[in-house]
Amino acid sequence: MTLFFVNDYGRGAHPKILEQLTQTNLESEYGYGMDSYSERAKEKIRLSCKKEDAEIYFLVGGTQTNAVVIKSLLRSYEGVISANTGHISTHEAGAIEYTGHKVIELPNYNGKLCAEDVEEYFDTFGKDANLMHMVKPGMVYISYPTEYGTLYSKEELTALHTICKKYSVPLFVDGARLGYGLMAKECDITFKEFADLCDVFYIGGTKIGALCGEAVVFTNKTIVPENYITIIKQAGALLAKGRLLGVQFDTLFTDNLYFNISKHAIEMAELLKKGLKDKGCKFYIDSPTNQQFIIVENNRMEKLKKTVQFAKWEKYDDTHTIIRFVVDWSTKKEDVEQLIKIL
Amino acid sequence: MTLFFVNDYGRGAHPKILEQLTQTNLESEYGYGMDSYSERAKEKIRLSCKKEDAEIYFLVGGTQTNAVVIKSLLRSYEGVISANTGHISTHEAGAIEYTGHKVIELPNYNGKLCAEDVEEYFDTFGKDANLMHMVKPGMVYISYPTEYGTLYSKEELTALHTICKKYSVPLFVDGARLGYGLMAKECDITFKEFADLCDVFYIGGTKIGALCGEAVVFTNKTIVPENYITIIKQAGALLAKGRLLGVQFDTLFTDNLYFNISKHAIEMAELLKKGLKDKGCKFYIDSPTNQQFIIVENNRMEKLKKTVQFAKWEKYDDTHTIIRFVVDWSTKKEDVEQLIKIL
Amino acid sequence: MTLFFVNDYGRGAHPKILEQLTQTNLESEYGYGMDSYSERAKEKIRLSCKKEDAEIYFLVGGTQTNAVVIKSLLRSYEGVISANTGHISTHEAGAIEYTGHKVIELPNYNGKLCAEDVEEYFDTFGKDANLMHMVKPGMVYISYPTEYGTLYSKEELTALHTICKKYSVPLFVDGARLGYGLMAKECDITFKEFADLCDVFYIGGTKIGALCGEAVVFTNKTIVPENYITIIKQAGALLAKGRLLGVQFDTLFTDNLYFNISKHAIEMAELLKKGLKDKGCKFYIDSPTNQQFIIVENNRMEKLKKTVQFAKWEKYDDTHTIIRFVVDWSTKKEDVEQLIKIL
Amino acid sequence: MTLFFVNDYGRGAHPKILEQLTQTNLESEYGYGMDSYSERAKEKIRLSCKKEDAEIYFLVGGTQTNAVVIKSLLRSYEGVISANTGHISTHEAGAIEYTGHKVIELPNYNGKLCAEDVEEYFDTFGKDANLMHMVKPGMVYISYPTEYGTLYSKEELTALHTICKKYSVPLFVDGARLGYGLMAKECDITFKEFADLCDVFYIGGTKIGALCGEAVVFTNKTIVPENYITIIKQAGALLAKGRLLGVQFDTLFTDNLYFNISKHAIEMAELLKKGLKDKGCKFYIDSPTNQQFIIVENNRMEKLKKTVQFAKWEKYDDTHTIIRFVVDWSTKKEDVEQLIKIL
Repeated sequence: MTLFFVNDYGRGAHPKILEQLTQTNLESEYGYGMDSYSERAKEKIRLSCKKEDAEIYFLVGGTQTNAVVIKSLLRSYEGVISANTGHISTHEAGAIEYTGHKVIELPNYNGKLCAEDVEEYFDTFGKDANLMHMVKPGMVYISYPTEYGTLYSKEELTALHTICKKYSVPLFVDGARLGYGLMAKECDITFKEFADLCDVFYIGGTKIGALCGEAVVFTNKTIVPENYITIIKQAGALLAKGRLLGVQFDTLFTDNLYFNISKHAIEMAELLKKGLKDKGCKFYIDSPTNQQFIIVENNRMEKLKKTVQFAKWEKYDDTHTIIRFVVDWSTKKEDVEQLIKIL
Repeated sequence: MTLFFVNDYGRGAHPKILEQLTQTNLESEYGYGMDSYSERAKEKIRLSCKKEDAEIYFLVGGTQTNAVVIKSLLRSYEGVISANTGHISTHEAGAIEYTGHKVIELPNYNGKLCAEDVEEYFDTFGKDANLMHMVKPGMVYISYPTEYGTLYSKEELTALHTICKKYSVPLFVDGARLGYGLMAKECDITFKEFADLCDVFYIGGTKIGALCGEAVVFTNKTIVPENYITIIKQAGALLAKGRLLGVQFDTLFTDNLYFNISKHAIEMAELLKKGLKDKGCKFYIDSPTNQQFIIVENNRMEKLKKTVQFAKWEKYDDTHTIIRFVVDWSTKKEDVEQLIKIL
Repeated sequence: MTLFFVNDYGRGAHPKILEQLTQTNLESEYGYGMDSYSERAKEKIRLSCKKEDAEIYFLVGGTQTNAVVIKSLLRSYEGVISANTGHISTHEAGAIEYTGHKVIELPNYNGKLCAEDVEEYFDTFGKDANLMHMVKPGMVYISYPTEYGTLYSKEELTALHTICKKYSVPLFVDGARLGYGLMAKECDITFKEFADLCDVFYIGGTKIGALCGEAVVFTNKTIVPENYITIIKQAGALLAKGRLLGVQFDTLFTDNLYFNISKHAIEMAELLKKGLKDKGCKFYIDSPTNQQFIIVENNRMEKLKKTVQFAKWEKYDDTHTIIRFVVDWSTKKEDVEQLIKIL
Repeated sequence: MTLFFVNDYGRGAHPKILEQLTQTNLESEYGYGMDSYSERAKEKIRLSCKKEDAEIYFLVGGTQTNAVVIKSLLRSYEGVISANTGHISTHEAGAIEYTGHKVIELPNYNGKLCAEDVEEYFDTFGKDANLMHMVKPGMVYISYPTEYGTLYSKEELTALHTICKKYSVPLFVDGARLGYGLMAKECDITFKEFADLCDVFYIGGTKIGALCGEAVVFTNKTIVPENYITIIKQAGALLAKGRLLGVQFDTLFTDNLYFNISKHAIEMAELLKKGLKDKGCKFYIDSPTNQQFIIVENNRMEKLKKTVQFAKWEKYDDTHTIIRFVVDWSTKKEDVEQLIKIL
């Protein structure tokens, strides 16, 4: 059997989640998120990020969440600003455009959007004589951590937050891997500070211990459209057995499980990173989180494939390829050690 | 604690599903439906309906499934014919229109669409001098069982099938409660015969033993658009951990579990129905499946609420209300007996 | 050459419009509705309906106007209530659904929506336990005159207006043939009173003397979304040479031309109606405006076709058909007289 | 009165068009493009580009045409490749995304898309392991002339054509200013050759002598979706009095009027260009067509504004601005001469 480092959705759920699903299985609960577990989970999330007023909704998957949140907050003629490496720009099959909105792509710097670029875009737009014929930037989207595993510093996040306030648009943070970001050594921000800096973000469950599920947290309640449940329903994103999401997030936010298992993943990532460095591997990008991108010779990559499963990311040059190793909440230390040995 | 007869998505999953999820939890699998359990589940479903060529996709929920299937099979200017009581007409928050398509509502007869009406609609449309300014009927949608628990006879289904063939449009059957239909005493059709009569249908998991999940079965492969995975992804309906759906349907279609637990529900429904009759309850509709609609005096309804949870369906007259009792795979005999006692 | 009574868009424009287009042809004007003629036309329309605050936009055609107005005023999960004979329900190729919204069809009474039905719909919706899963009625759409040439009385319009206010939704009136309605003998309402009773309506140019063009009048400015020009542009409905619309409506609202030519059409309609009655023709509906629907034997219809062009409306019974004769601003008295002679 | 060089839609129509509209005004014609003038115009266009099989539709405006054509030819998950300066990328208020499709922006070279970039994009896409999660490039869009007035050479067009064939996607050319392109001195291609190289293009009327109107020409009939009239209707783009478009294009394609007046504009552009050069003006781009972009000092620009109307294009640097002078079919020689004098 080969080692699995392909992605962070290759295994099931954290055992405590399965236990909890099993234990509560035959209780009768209302549907569509009106179950008691969803309520409890919401309360625990509010406590965790210290936003007692936050409005929270549970959705099933990441692309779905991005599409629902973005569509619901934009006016018909508005677009969303994103790094050109943003998940919504690249790997969501056009789900945002499908809802009728342009993804306005700005350059990325190690996967990150730069506040200066965003400001300039708003400024230039505002001065354009043709602006009534143009897509109005109506939201800023970033991922934390980014698709390349990198993190915005508190300063960078604050700068983006400030610009969004200045231009009165919401800052939306895709936290598909939020736990891995906040638990990274390099992270210089608390969950509360993070929550303070965005208008809406989501806490990724799928990639951190859940079978499925993302928790959308509106820290800024004033932007939540009326009848949000209907909006979610219309998009086919309202789970009948909402308890499945409620129980999972209730478990993840009990005794800090979400962050504890995220921390484990970061430890595994650090171990892997050190091993890769010791072996003289060339990093494509310096990632402080659970995804590590390295540049390998094509021959070596082919050989590696026989014993390790990883993701082929993209061509580096004619003789090299960028490959990605991913660890997660479920990665075992011995597997990382074995991977290093193989390398 | 009160008795729960509100709906068929109030409890978790069949215990075997939880066991199987637990047992396979730490295996590493590919995402997005490319896991081995999804493959196995598809094969078992093909065997079960004896359609070895069927193309199968797993989605998460019913509204989502209806929206994806309908949108993907219609041309931009086409609409879908449905009974005016069809789920897509009434309780999906406009999810079909959200994808750009009209739901063409025809009268219902006990929740069912009538083949003659459908034929006349196609015929009239074809002869209309203004047809190029009209929504073209491009698909027929029915639910089996219907939203009122009723069933199409083999003859009725065949008639609809024949008309769809005649006008070259697909017949799509919403089988959110398919098992409860096929296991009803009144049902005069096998799963294979059912599958033969539609172009595409879905097998509801959410309401029959799963935590979530619907299996879309294209018995007519020629109508499946290219790159269907991308279509699902774009709609935000592609589950990253596809194994969650794969394992569930693999379990449901092992040893006929899906139909066995459906049969149990039908037995509970028959027991309940007999009890209601014996007590002299007035039925709103004669339902052979797991939903029972009765007419009660408003006073009595208020009293009932204290000991039983049920769904208030709609006003019958100024002093009576239609209420709905639902049983499912998880309903216990003693609960039904107690409900009858209370009544 | 045959007589033409097919529709009210079969001839070009009122000669004064062509003169004015010719006269102003080489003046340089700004585009996209910012020309001086559009400004002047708006001012004249405001004076005509005595709504000095009205916000006005010129669009090109009727279906386009309906789609833009409806889409722009509804929230994503809302639908628009219409008679099932409404133009948006029947002859716009699903243009409203194409924008993502359901047309909620209520019964028609001689082409008209009934205030009681609308009230009951709102009331029932508001009390439905499942309302969060349903399309919210977010607007009421009527045509004045209706697609069958009939008119709402002042009382009927007031009743609809009152209900819309009660439920806080806008009343939108499709005035594709507005002039023919307001000039009808049966009409018991002034233009001002009409404007007072709706939140937004459009003044049809295409069918009353213009080459193209509809003037959208928001009498209730508070409902106009920001950046409406961008909304129009996004829908592909913003004419570059907005002067084409400006000049036409400026002409139509100079010296009351719009209503004068509408009145002429009504006189022709009355003449035709009297002729038809005298000849013993059976009317399908009693229309006080420019469209007349009669029931003829199929044989006779075939014979008529040789000398008169009219519209075959729909089958009446196996031996009879409903046909439509339409007169408009351009219809000549001698043509009507000749038609009567032929009949 | 100031000189007008702002754009090419500032004046009305070529006088012959107004004459023809006036002359045919009271003839009775069928609506929705089924009039005899539209038929005649189509035939003349087919002859003009020597594509006797071409399928032709008349629409009202450019953005509308782009949206209808692109939407109708793409599958739901496909996007359209465009230069990042393409009209659909920049100045159509997101009309393409509004139809659900991504505009895939590639770099521009003087406003042009480069065949090598397009090929590389297709190639990279085809090899991407994640391609099922990505927007499939399903069409290539270019403008001829471009938004910067530049032209593709025959070789460049052929290269794009070849790549589109290789990847089986249609090449769609936005010819809003087609006449100005084909009549430019630099143009090395005939109308026929041009038509041979694209699958669908449109002939811009609005900017070349018409009041409104664009003629969509499918040279490759096999790609035209069924019921195209319904598709146009659904988008609100079907003009009731289609004769308005028919008469205009019939006139434009009688005695080569379209190209003759385009040629006049090019002569005016050449005159202006020479004058600008003689005056030592700095060109932002070398445009062989009717739009000229020059770089002026901000002070000078402010002074110019008093006597000439032009378009402020964009900031060049802190002290300079790019401005645009546009000539068209209606520009008088003396106005150009006066402009040069002023400069």
